[in-house]
Amino acid sequence: MEFDHTAVPSHDIAASVAWYREHLGAEVLFQDETWAFLNVGGQKLALVTPTQHPPHVAVRVSEGELLEAARAAKVEVDSHRDGTRGIYVYDPFGNAVELICYPAGKTIYETSDSTSSS
Amino acid sequence: MEFDHTAVPSHDIAASVAWYREHLGAEVLFQDETWAFLNVGGQKLALVTPTQHPPHVAVRVSEGELLEAARAAKVEVDSHRDGTRGIYVYDPFGNAVELICYPAGKTIYETSDSTSSS
Repeated sequence: MEFDHTAVPSHDIAASVAWYREHLGAEVLFQDETWAFLNVGGQKLALVTPTQHPPHVAVRVSEGELLEAARAAKVEVDSHRDGTRGIYVYDPFGNAVELICYPAGKTIYETSDSTSSS
Repeated sequence: MEFDHTAVPSHDIAASVAWYREHLGAEVLFQDETWAFLNVGGQKLALVTPTQHPPHVAVRVSEGELLEAARAAKVEVDSHRDGTRGIYVYDPFGNAVELICYPAGKTIYETSDSTSSS
């Protein structure tokens, strides 16, 4: 299990991206009108539309860990447009924590880490 | 500028710490009744009491960068109990972003990174 990203809400992805680029020197990894993925000082930061995704932190898990956690939480695994799969679980305060899996060869992201360790 | 931590809210630090330990294998770096600092999969995650600190992401900056940003934002630099210093700035949605400085020899944390690069 490895920390993957933090996601914060935005109602105007373009304006938020501009702010993070100007103030924190963010690098844009992906951007459309509904969300963006930034590199902020070596860590991935997602900007998400609150009606589509809750603010959250995400940890990267294996396919097996994801399926086991989904069974334990009694929730379905979501497949995302970028090829990742995941579920949300919630801490005692109600903060969303995403367990995310990057299936090798099925995502738009580099998956050399996951393939080399499988 | 380097990503430092994400802080999420909690009304019961002990209960939240227990949850992150059980579900994400978190390592406790610091804990008292008002906040905690965890290592979650290689990334620092703070649990904060919302009346004391807003949920936020934090980037580590130098003393000079902190003072310059404080001047630009027209805010005072806060000194924290753990020896760190920082300010909050806000993105266009209103999310808090902490600019944090770990003065060498003045914090409870390891500062070899900052001292070796100064």
